[in-house]
Amino acid sequence: MLGDRDEYYMRMALAEARRAFAADEIPIGAVIVADDRVIGRGHNLTETLRDVTAHAEMQAITAAANSVGGKYLPEATLYVTVEPCLMCAGAIGWAQISRIVYGCDDSRRGYRSLTAASPFHPRATAIGGVLADECAALMIDFFKKKR
Amino acid sequence: MLGDRDEYYMRMALAEARRAFAADEIPIGAVIVADDRVIGRGHNLTETLRDVTAHAEMQAITAAANSVGGKYLPEATLYVTVEPCLMCAGAIGWAQISRIVYGCDDSRRGYRSLTAASPFHPRATAIGGVLADECAALMIDFFKKKR
Repeated sequence: MLGDRDEYYMRMALAEARRAFAADEIPIGAVIVADDRVIGRGHNLTETLRDVTAHAEMQAITAAANSVGGKYLPEATLYVTVEPCLMCAGAIGWAQISRIVYGCDDSRRGYRSLTAASPFHPRATAIGGVLADECAALMIDFFKKKR
Repeated sequence: MLGDRDEYYMRMALAEARRAFAADEIPIGAVIVADDRVIGRGHNLTETLRDVTAHAEMQAITAAANSVGGKYLPEATLYVTVEPCLMCAGAIGWAQISRIVYGCDDSRRGYRSLTAASPFHPRATAIGGVLADECAALMIDFFKKKR
């Protein structure tokens, strides 16, 4: 169920994505929330860290695990501006995050077209399309600039 | 094609896996090789770091990227004692690793049963079953001990 809180936290993820944009990184941002409190956030840093594993979601999951002092996040919702890739979807599954809210689709690299079954925890739910236009516009602006 | 070098490097990955075992971690190890030289290695550290993303392959990919000073590893072969999970398979794909050699299958969490298409680079090849019995025995010993 989509609520005002989802838009609120997606705007926070968008602010993270804008930080990536400003650092000349593909502009994707993520925020992890539990009990209406942000427990982790991150943005894509693959160029800065020269590390393909440094996606927004991975940074946010590691940060959230540090902040709660445990590697499982079953009460958490992850907000991310773009549909997660296979790697991030796998990490979200391992972390047992129970709710995934993403912005725009990624038809090429998104997990939905690449998985044979849900990569998330069996009890997890996922919804897309929250502030999708704003999330996609940021990506389009970035790739236009790169041409 | 399987050669003596594959067994040689898989034994190195097994040594990494034994380090995980000694640290009370699920015993999986990985080594990344380019030009017959080890450029990265790692073992599972998810408990120690309290971080679900700290799989052997992820550690090895980050280490290899640091060691070569670039995030893509198109000339590299990754050796890992157990069939990679979805997260690690995704990371291997992003890193453009061209050859994946694994030990024993993971029928439950391995990428093969969970993906709809190859998660690796289009030119990459993957083979399993290298020293599979030794790789599996280490896992079985670990889970027996845990009972």
